[in-house]
Amino acid sequence: MAEAQTKLYPIEYLIDFATKVFQHFGVPVDDARLAADVLAAADLRGIDTHGMQRLHTYFDMLELGRINPTPEIKIVRESASTATVDGDNGLGLVVGPKANRIAQDKAREAGSGWVSVSNTNHFGSCAYYLLETIRDKSMIGWANTNSTKLVAPLWGAERMLGTNPIGIAFPAGKETDVFVDMATSAAAYGKIEVARRKGTSVPEGWHIDKDGQMSTDPNAMIEGGALLPLGSTRELGGHKGYCLAMAVDILCSMLSGANWGPFAPPFALRQEEPARSVGKGIGHFFGAWRIDAFIDQDEFLAQMDDYVRTFRGTKPQPGTDGPMIPGDPERAAEAERTKTGVPILASIVDDMRDIADKTGIAFE
Amino acid sequence: MAEAQTKLYPIEYLIDFATKVFQHFGVPVDDARLAADVLAAADLRGIDTHGMQRLHTYFDMLELGRINPTPEIKIVRESASTATVDGDNGLGLVVGPKANRIAQDKAREAGSGWVSVSNTNHFGSCAYYLLETIRDKSMIGWANTNSTKLVAPLWGAERMLGTNPIGIAFPAGKETDVFVDMATSAAAYGKIEVARRKGTSVPEGWHIDKDGQMSTDPNAMIEGGALLPLGSTRELGGHKGYCLAMAVDILCSMLSGANWGPFAPPFALRQEEPARSVGKGIGHFFGAWRIDAFIDQDEFLAQMDDYVRTFRGTKPQPGTDGPMIPGDPERAAEAERTKTGVPILASIVDDMRDIADKTGIAFE
Repeated sequence: MAEAQTKLYPIEYLIDFATKVFQHFGVPVDDARLAADVLAAADLRGIDTHGMQRLHTYFDMLELGRINPTPEIKIVRESASTATVDGDNGLGLVVGPKANRIAQDKAREAGSGWVSVSNTNHFGSCAYYLLETIRDKSMIGWANTNSTKLVAPLWGAERMLGTNPIGIAFPAGKETDVFVDMATSAAAYGKIEVARRKGTSVPEGWHIDKDGQMSTDPNAMIEGGALLPLGSTRELGGHKGYCLAMAVDILCSMLSGANWGPFAPPFALRQEEPARSVGKGIGHFFGAWRIDAFIDQDEFLAQMDDYVRTFRGTKPQPGTDGPMIPGDPERAAEAERTKTGVPILASIVDDMRDIADKTGIAFE
Repeated sequence: MAEAQTKLYPIEYLIDFATKVFQHFGVPVDDARLAADVLAAADLRGIDTHGMQRLHTYFDMLELGRINPTPEIKIVRESASTATVDGDNGLGLVVGPKANRIAQDKAREAGSGWVSVSNTNHFGSCAYYLLETIRDKSMIGWANTNSTKLVAPLWGAERMLGTNPIGIAFPAGKETDVFVDMATSAAAYGKIEVARRKGTSVPEGWHIDKDGQMSTDPNAMIEGGALLPLGSTRELGGHKGYCLAMAVDILCSMLSGANWGPFAPPFALRQEEPARSVGKGIGHFFGAWRIDAFIDQDEFLAQMDDYVRTFRGTKPQPGTDGPMIPGDPERAAEAERTKTGVPILASIVDDMRDIADKTGIAFE
């Protein structure tokens, strides 16, 4: 399969290319580099679907004038521990990091900080935001976004919710940080696409077809079906995944004035336009708790070290190496890719070359 | 089956009885009534496992002197939007409501409020706390607790985490509120117990046996097995439920100084004592976001009404009535039970009579 072929690129090369692409559309250099860094955080950590793979979509949106390259990002309301930000239809990759910093600033002053964002676009992966917030180990980080509809509510037969991720990260001292970054659907859309390309079926519980019937055929999901929420069925707790997806959607949209549920605007051009508009853009929600507002930071970090070691010592399930600490796979990818470079699929390399042709920016 | 027999009791009768039971051990009358109200909130809403069913366990713990009937509940650290509370080993049913009010007070002043609690005990269901926080529709409510180990991490073969619930509630205007109150395990322990009593098997994905093998035999879970996290298997996202259970555990324990993971002390007497102590009691975590710190409350509530109507209008999955709004089953139970009374299992009526015999408090 040609699609499985990859080429390795040093992360700095990809960042440089993406920065120039954003600049090509008038994004100021600092913002362009910031946006490229957010994509790179996903690529480095193996979250390929949220990294450079999406660059052509950002390119399309900027070329069509659907995203404002020079937004005036404004705080429209605030209190000691909260702020509401209007992203002026900027790149989520630029609006997101700036809003996230406001959450950190609030937490430094008031113990915790919470920022809702409207009038924004796809913000990449949660990873970048969480890494920033826990960088100096003084805070717990939180990040959510809503997104275009892909997921059915339990007992629903149509797409009503995005894959609405929950990101939450806790720093440890000497051990690895606990890093949660998960879509609230049972499986990622990207996995369905991969199965379609390979012509294989997927596990029951990932999606329903356009009539609401359980299906293992990836085409049935892509052609008008829907992903299932985490838990998949009533018996296995699918109502819980539905609850979580809805909670994320409400936090991102209702507190900011963004679109919600089935009306969240699409990111990719091939996705259908929502039936109506109920707000501005999509929404994000960022948070930070300052650790020493609750307890001594040293005590917290030492206990976290004990925690991580204790969970690594769990009796393993037969046939496995035992439980991982949340974030382990991403850390392993980062260690590998920092050394060897980031593998980019041949089809994505073609996308990059297409951008290079259209903009005149070099891409090898 | 004798166990399936129930007797109906008016909620006020149960509250009165429980209040007197708590008073019998020296709990001040206001606190005793508060504790009874927390239990009643679960009973009214059909969450039987977290209501009067547990009264005999609270009775045991008080009788053995394991819970302090007259705690001096103290704020040991605070900032504008946060507080850390030491519950002085009081009833969670008393410490919890008081800590939750501090979160609300902080949110009124600072836009949001977050309270971590250590040195406390089982707090009932999240329902009471969320109902209090959204009562006047000015706030979003949040509640977590950790609890004694019952759940295996994905790829683990032993109990390491509690069923660590996530509670989050959003008020609507004229429509029903969105009310999320869910354990982070695939299924509730109570459902395993019911299957054992009935001699039936349970769905694959609920638990593993003592060797870490998937099992459908309820005895295999109860006799040294473990519940599985929401998502059940790697394929269906069991790592996500594990992540959520861990995040709740960390929020409840690390920010407060409470015990965590496998070291959270047991509630029922039959449960084993943890191998070591790493903190004080179990932990809770309460939060409140003040809506108008982000957006006009009227706008929020009107959008929430639109939201609830939109989701009620989802195309139904064949064979269902379509998706529910989170909280619908509990609201239906409350409407029914307010009229007819609360059904109490014959075995629980026996427990109540046992308490009556031992305390001299009348119970019909």
